[in-house]
Amino acid sequence: MTGILANLSGALASGRVEIVDLTHRLTPDFPVMVLPPEFGQCAPFRKTEVSAYDHRGPAWRWNEITMNEHTGTHFDAPSHWITGRDVPDGATDSIPVRNFVGPVVVIDFTAEAAADEDALLEVAHIQAWEERHGRVPADCWVFLRTDWSKRQGAAYLNLREDGAHSPGPSPDAIRFLVEKRDIRGFGTETVGTDAGQAGHLDPPYPAHATLHGAGRYGLQCMCDLDRLPATGAVLLAAPLKIENGSGSPLRVLALVEKEG
Amino acid sequence: MTGILANLSGALASGRVEIVDLTHRLTPDFPVMVLPPEFGQCAPFRKTEVSAYDHRGPAWRWNEITMNEHTGTHFDAPSHWITGRDVPDGATDSIPVRNFVGPVVVIDFTAEAAADEDALLEVAHIQAWEERHGRVPADCWVFLRTDWSKRQGAAYLNLREDGAHSPGPSPDAIRFLVEKRDIRGFGTETVGTDAGQAGHLDPPYPAHATLHGAGRYGLQCMCDLDRLPATGAVLLAAPLKIENGSGSPLRVLALVEKEG
Ligand SMILES: [Mn+2]
Ligand SMILES: [Mn+2]
Repeated sequence: MTGILANLSGALASGRVEIVDLTHRLTPDFPVMVLPPEFGQCAPFRKTEVSAYDHRGPAWRWNEITMNEHTGTHFDAPSHWITGRDVPDGATDSIPVRNFVGPVVVIDFTAEAAADEDALLEVAHIQAWEERHGRVPADCWVFLRTDWSKRQGAAYLNLREDGAHSPGPSPDAIRFLVEKRDIRGFGTETVGTDAGQAGHLDPPYPAHATLHGAGRYGLQCMCDLDRLPATGAVLLAAPLKIENGSGSPLRVLALVEKEG
Repeated sequence: MTGILANLSGALASGRVEIVDLTHRLTPDFPVMVLPPEFGQCAPFRKTEVSAYDHRGPAWRWNEITMNEHTGTHFDAPSHWITGRDVPDGATDSIPVRNFVGPVVVIDFTAEAAADEDALLEVAHIQAWEERHGRVPADCWVFLRTDWSKRQGAAYLNLREDGAHSPGPSPDAIRFLVEKRDIRGFGTETVGTDAGQAGHLDPPYPAHATLHGAGRYGLQCMCDLDRLPATGAVLLAAPLKIENGSGSPLRVLALVEKEG
């Protein structure tokens, strides 16, 4: 074994590099996005027992599982959105696998999200972050930490008569990240990469429109982003290899190195 | 960023560390295990369109997906088997996440599998491998390379009147790996971790019985094991966080460092 992976294995064994799980449990009651009734809906997770050490299979248990590609903690492929329909290698089974492992930075937006549930990340917030932590590297995941994953029940989707209310990026901010910083992808704790009221922005759903049109990826419904450092973690986020999939539930893990 | 992860990120960016995909595409025609008709069966992968940039969702496409926890390239948790039913942390959502990243070694069993489709890996094969490559490390994945993933159609399951015919470990070999080498898990290219005729061994299905009874993990239906070195790769294999899941389809990736 040459150096880099031997060092990684040693650091994992010693605990110097820790693995952090950013994934919600897949259960039938985890909230899914709710669309206007004329549209196809996102199915929640369901599980049916096939056997459980019984007459249907004496020595084994296993289940059948059903969900949407966008149920629970999940990955958005470029061809999920109409802007990305003609992006090369834009589905879960064609994205180059090198994109499934790489650096991630975390922007702490918790104060803004606590003060205003419709708070939009602006370019000025990113620039303030860069003054403290350095420039957002190219080909890097950017996560928007809002602590939204700590909300329970109805407060998570936060639906009112006029739709969902939750934070997300402004059109300018996501364009800045894609065009000026050349990020690999953008991830959130909310049910989508866009704010709850993002249908009223220009363009509507700017995170989806801009990221996927440029062949970039999304991650959402993550938890425990407060366990990540602002810079220096490595993300492991590999979707299922669904044939021409538009996205996928997945296990999102991060490698975090301890100081010293 | 301190050293180890910075080095990893740099090596991924430069191509010095490559990511190898060991996963078959999830399609309806990928073969699943066939059990005697009195038992619950393993569902193949199915996908139903929810919208495709149309009246059901003008700007997006997404699908509903159904499968067994043991469909396609997948992970076996300890509680999949009756011997592992009381193992602590034995389900997909309770296994400590540190087990999802770590070293893997590959035993080349292609010549034996080509000569005899019921070939059993014996302790002597492992000892011969150790003479060339060193002792199998503790807490390591061991993969049995058979090139079985290159078989097409009916030749993959290789069913005859008396059941499936495919290679796997002998009871002694898997006991040796678990008890004398303390491995983390065992992975194959065939449809299961056990040989096709393993129901006739003592114990029946020794890989399942021994691995899971000892709290160890299984991986199967992998491909492209010929792209891995005998030692030195790092495996990324994280199941979906299914509530009390017995296993999970997943993306299996390996990090491989280039020489020099
Ligand atoms: Mn989505
Ligand atoms: Mn299985």
